[in-house]
Amino acid sequence: MTNITATEQRVLEHLDSAEMLAFLAELVGYQSFGAHEDAAQRRIAHAMSDSGLEVDVWDIDFASLQQHPGFSWEIERASGLGVVGTLGSDRGGRSLILNGHIDVVPEGDHANWSYHPWQGQIVDGRMYGRGALDMKGGLVAALWAVRAIHKAGVQLNGRLHLQSVIGEEDGGCGTLASIVRGYTADAAIIPEPTRMAIAPAQAGAHNVRITVYGLSAHGCYREEGVSAIEKYMVVHQALVALEARRNARMRHPLFANYHLPYPLSIGTVRAGNWPSSVAEELVAEGRYGIGIGEDSNAARREFEQAVAEAAANDPWLRDHPPLIEWWGGTFEPAETDVNHPIVGTLAGAHQALGGEVAIEGMTYGADMRLLVIHGGIPTVMYGPGDVRLAHKPDESVPVADLIHVARTLALTAMRFIGYSA
Amino acid sequence: MTNITATEQRVLEHLDSAEMLAFLAELVGYQSFGAHEDAAQRRIAHAMSDSGLEVDVWDIDFASLQQHPGFSWEIERASGLGVVGTLGSDRGGRSLILNGHIDVVPEGDHANWSYHPWQGQIVDGRMYGRGALDMKGGLVAALWAVRAIHKAGVQLNGRLHLQSVIGEEDGGCGTLASIVRGYTADAAIIPEPTRMAIAPAQAGAHNVRITVYGLSAHGCYREEGVSAIEKYMVVHQALVALEARRNARMRHPLFANYHLPYPLSIGTVRAGNWPSSVAEELVAEGRYGIGIGEDSNAARREFEQAVAEAAANDPWLRDHPPLIEWWGGTFEPAETDVNHPIVGTLAGAHQALGGEVAIEGMTYGADMRLLVIHGGIPTVMYGPGDVRLAHKPDESVPVADLIHVARTLALTAMRFIGYSA
Repeated sequence: MTNITATEQRVLEHLDSAEMLAFLAELVGYQSFGAHEDAAQRRIAHAMSDSGLEVDVWDIDFASLQQHPGFSWEIERASGLGVVGTLGSDRGGRSLILNGHIDVVPEGDHANWSYHPWQGQIVDGRMYGRGALDMKGGLVAALWAVRAIHKAGVQLNGRLHLQSVIGEEDGGCGTLASIVRGYTADAAIIPEPTRMAIAPAQAGAHNVRITVYGLSAHGCYREEGVSAIEKYMVVHQALVALEARRNARMRHPLFANYHLPYPLSIGTVRAGNWPSSVAEELVAEGRYGIGIGEDSNAARREFEQAVAEAAANDPWLRDHPPLIEWWGGTFEPAETDVNHPIVGTLAGAHQALGGEVAIEGMTYGADMRLLVIHGGIPTVMYGPGDVRLAHKPDESVPVADLIHVARTLALTAMRFIGYSA
Repeated sequence: MTNITATEQRVLEHLDSAEMLAFLAELVGYQSFGAHEDAAQRRIAHAMSDSGLEVDVWDIDFASLQQHPGFSWEIERASGLGVVGTLGSDRGGRSLILNGHIDVVPEGDHANWSYHPWQGQIVDGRMYGRGALDMKGGLVAALWAVRAIHKAGVQLNGRLHLQSVIGEEDGGCGTLASIVRGYTADAAIIPEPTRMAIAPAQAGAHNVRITVYGLSAHGCYREEGVSAIEKYMVVHQALVALEARRNARMRHPLFANYHLPYPLSIGTVRAGNWPSSVAEELVAEGRYGIGIGEDSNAARREFEQAVAEAAANDPWLRDHPPLIEWWGGTFEPAETDVNHPIVGTLAGAHQALGGEVAIEGMTYGADMRLLVIHGGIPTVMYGPGDVRLAHKPDESVPVADLIHVARTLALTAMRFIGYSA
């Protein structure tokens, strides 16, 4: 290891990775689906407290939060908890936010998992489980970074905030609540899975719902009806073509490695209410990738236009146009200047600990855009594991990444904020 | 009117059609979905009693009924009522069953209805409402036929049974329960909608469920997954081709008027559990038309083979073959000899009352096959309205058909059974 000070070395020695992995496995055990995050939030607040942070736990006021222009959700909540732990106070240094979400998506059919989705089992150097990667792993690595700084007795010259947020998967209500509560800083890092690349750019994603109308009839006379299922196939083909056009057109240097930086993916379909009736309605829901710097309204119009053109060429759809609704999670694209000091500091720490620096954009929507757009906070993502393993069976994160990220975040926080031994 | 005896004329005069329509409208008001038939069954049992029938109401023993080879259902029931009313006793004449079902399919979106689905409103000579056509209309017409015979004081020479059955739409558990209870006769008529054609043949329909497997992934990396929605489209195209092949091959003189006597119709589709995840599973349910005289097992094998061939040509489906399940309603095809006396008697009565006789097969599965196959009872369908208006919004039945069918059934019962004035 080069370029590591004695104080930094002391902090790294206080970073107990066995303890960190045990806590992560425990946290994976909480089935913290959207709107069911309370128990996990209370647990991590307790762990923050135990790690020397001053912890702010509050009931989010959703009635007022919903008035915010950056608000969106897919899962309605009557209540939910904000949790922010703080180490250090303002002594002339910079401030930094580490932000991670505690909510997870459904685990799907257990038969598709090789390991139990809620046990955080470690096999061949990887921890398995829903949320181990996305992103309780990054969140716990951040907590253990802060904990090590505290245990080593290092005094920071500015505030280091660790935010555990709810609702990232369905629109980011938790991060927005932290912004509204007044938490700000000179920079923020979100340890979402980036394969430890530094990501100063994030593609957007808007949730979309398409309703295709058919005409019901008894299945024994199906030709008297119009199947919404068959008519959806016409729309689907138009969406496949739209995705190809957009991705060929919008190229960005930080996304040079991606074949498909802005995917359009239909995730759910529901049609019909009786096997022997012709389906009179089909509802499809999906995510529509938005390009860096792209105008969201123009992107939505392009989608609507593509569906309208497909409908215009179909005798039934022409007279019964599909309904398009923009709903739930609205993830705007966001970008932070690659010359901002947080990028260089993070790159330096990552490299000092033996990592190879990569800087690239991420294709997925996350809370970065809320911190950038509504918090005005330069933000990057940098975290353990590969997001391609998220949202599916056998989600897992490499243990080595968890340890490396925890160490890098400790050094980055110390160097960015400044400290006295 | 020709060929109508004075006694027959007296019975027709006792058939109060205004009263019949009022009762039908009331009965349409019962939302007697599968497994929610009790209230409607009690109401019609009361009306049978009021019409001079001896009424047998019993709790169906589903535990034992499920052992019967003809049993099938899609909606599990803990309990349900059998209702059979009887007029007359054995005095040397023939016996006759009139059978109609009281269950209805869901009404769908009310916005697609011009008239309230549960009010039995009459507009321009048609009664509108879910079940008005399929088939509370035919059932009530049959009740008013029997009621008129009773009111006119005509004594039948044999038993006339009126069966109000549950569960026709999901497999026929109610009719099977009546057979098991011992009800039999020399013939049966089911007043399902046939546009008043006499239908001595009925195509079959087997319910089928297809599960298509994909591979889940985060929507932002959708190419890492395999969309079950897109893979279903491959299967769907194979089903469309299968339907065309079968209908071109299986021709039957009673179905000469049909372009598509044996439709294969997928009625429901469910896929995915999160808009921004790639769908890992799609479940489609539908009905598969079976030809008159076709071997059901061979028909099922042909279906399975068509899906297997489509899968073999797809790199993903080859290794992840779709699952095919035969479940719920199994409607076998059935046929009654056109020379059986019930056909001629019905044709004669229909014609005597001014109708034009048509004899043709019906494409839909119904309880006829249970009476024929498991009851050994020669059965025909003959009823008011057009089944093409069933299972969809604005279901309706012509009032003139209701009255004509009630009158025809009264004459048919008298002539087939025999009577003394």
